[in-house]
Amino acid sequence: MTIDARLAELGIALPEAAAPAANYVPFVEAVGLLHISGQIPFDAGGQLIRGRLGEDMGVAEGQEAARRCAIGLLAQMKAALGSLDRVAQIVKLSVFVNSAPGFTDQPEVANGASDLMVAVFGERGRHARSAVGVAVLPRGVAVEIDAVVAVS
Amino acid sequence: MTIDARLAELGIALPEAAAPAANYVPFVEAVGLLHISGQIPFDAGGQLIRGRLGEDMGVAEGQEAARRCAIGLLAQMKAALGSLDRVAQIVKLSVFVNSAPGFTDQPEVANGASDLMVAVFGERGRHARSAVGVAVLPRGVAVEIDAVVAVS
Amino acid sequence: MTIDARLAELGIALPEAAAPAANYVPFVEAVGLLHISGQIPFDAGGQLIRGRLGEDMGVAEGQEAARRCAIGLLAQMKAALGSLDRVAQIVKLSVFVNSAPGFTDQPEVANGASDLMVAVFGERGRHARSAVGVAVLPRGVAVEIDAVVAVS
Repeated sequence: MTIDARLAELGIALPEAAAPAANYVPFVEAVGLLHISGQIPFDAGGQLIRGRLGEDMGVAEGQEAARRCAIGLLAQMKAALGSLDRVAQIVKLSVFVNSAPGFTDQPEVANGASDLMVAVFGERGRHARSAVGVAVLPRGVAVEIDAVVAVS
Repeated sequence: MTIDARLAELGIALPEAAAPAANYVPFVEAVGLLHISGQIPFDAGGQLIRGRLGEDMGVAEGQEAARRCAIGLLAQMKAALGSLDRVAQIVKLSVFVNSAPGFTDQPEVANGASDLMVAVFGERGRHARSAVGVAVLPRGVAVEIDAVVAVS
Repeated sequence: MTIDARLAELGIALPEAAAPAANYVPFVEAVGLLHISGQIPFDAGGQLIRGRLGEDMGVAEGQEAARRCAIGLLAQMKAALGSLDRVAQIVKLSVFVNSAPGFTDQPEVANGASDLMVAVFGERGRHARSAVGVAVLPRGVAVEIDAVVAVS
C-alpha cells in the first residue's frame, strides 16, 4: 500500500506545506538526510493552536496539537520528496512543548506526533525523540516539532 | 583497551538500556549516524533524579544528573551497536537543563556529561554541544540529553 | 566571488573562533556534515550580549544578538574548514531565544541569523530552522544558536 493510500485510509488530508515567513526554507536534504524546519500546529480550519500545557490546555488538546505538527511535517516531506513513499525512516523528532513550570507530561503530549508517524509509516515511522518543556513558543502555539528523515 | 575495559577501570556499570514508553525507539541509525533519544537521569538505584537548578538543586547535583544521562546514552549505544568499540565519534550532545530563570550555569551542569564522554572514549568522545535552560522537563527531572554518534 | 570577499563587501570581520571552556569541541565533522556547538552572542567589542526578550530587550536587539551568534558560527566554520568556500549548504539552525513567558516573536529574532546566512552564502545559505523560547541561557545571554552544515 502506498503512503498516500494509507493516509486516505486514516482519513488524513495533507494541508498545503506551510511556507516560511523569512530567509529560511522548510527543508534541506543533504547526505541522504532531510532536515525539516520546526512545524507549529494548525487546526483543520487553518487556525493556529495556541496554549500552554498545565495552564490553559490539557494533555488531550496538547496531543492533538502535536498530531497537527506531525501532519505539517508530512506535508513538508511530500513537498520535499514528491512522494511519501521515498521516506526510508523517520530518524528523529525534537518536540518542544509550551509548558507551565509544573507540567511534566511532555512525553504524553509528544505521543500525539509519534503515534501518527507509526500509524502512517509503520516500522519506518519509529523514531528517536526528545521532548522538553519550553517557556514559550512562536505566536504562543502549544507545540513545535522539527524532524530528521532518512530518504531513499 | 576496549571501551568495556575502560568502563570497568572507571567503575561504571551500565544499566539496562531504558525502554521508551511510547511509539518511539531509543535510537535510529541512518547514513552512519546514530540518533539517540533524549535520556533522563536515573541514579544508581534506578530512581529518577528530579529537581530544578537554581531552585532546589545545586551545580554539583546537576552535574551528577548530567553524568547519569550520559551513562544512559552509553547504555543505548551499546544496545544499538553491540559493542561500544564501534563508536567512531560522539558528534553532538544537546543538553536541556531544568532551570529557574536566574540560573545561568548550564555549561557547568553539562560538563557532567561531557567529562564522562571524554573519560570513556578519549579523543573520540570530544563532541559538539549545546546547553540551554528549559522551563520544565518530563517527570520533573533535572537534565535531559540527546545525542548524535558516528559509527564505524 | 569568494565568501571571504563577500564578507568584506558586507563589512563583516570574523572574530577568533570562540574556544569551548570544557571537555567539548566547537565542531565535529562526520559523514559530510559539520555539527557546530551552540554559539552565544558577543558584540564587536567582545562582550556578551545579555538579556531576556520581552523583559529587558526588544526585537531589534534580539535580532542583533542572533546575527552575532551567526557570525560566531561563521568563525567556527572557517576554523573547521579552512575556507568558507567549502560550505556546500547551511542545513539547519536551532535557535534558542531567552524569552519572558509573554514573548512570542522568536521567528523575528531568529531572522537576524537567517538573513545573515543568506546575505553571505546566497542560496547555499537557505536553511531549515527551529526557533523556540527558553527560560534562561548560559551566562544570561539573549540567544544561542547551533548549526548543521553540509561540506564539500
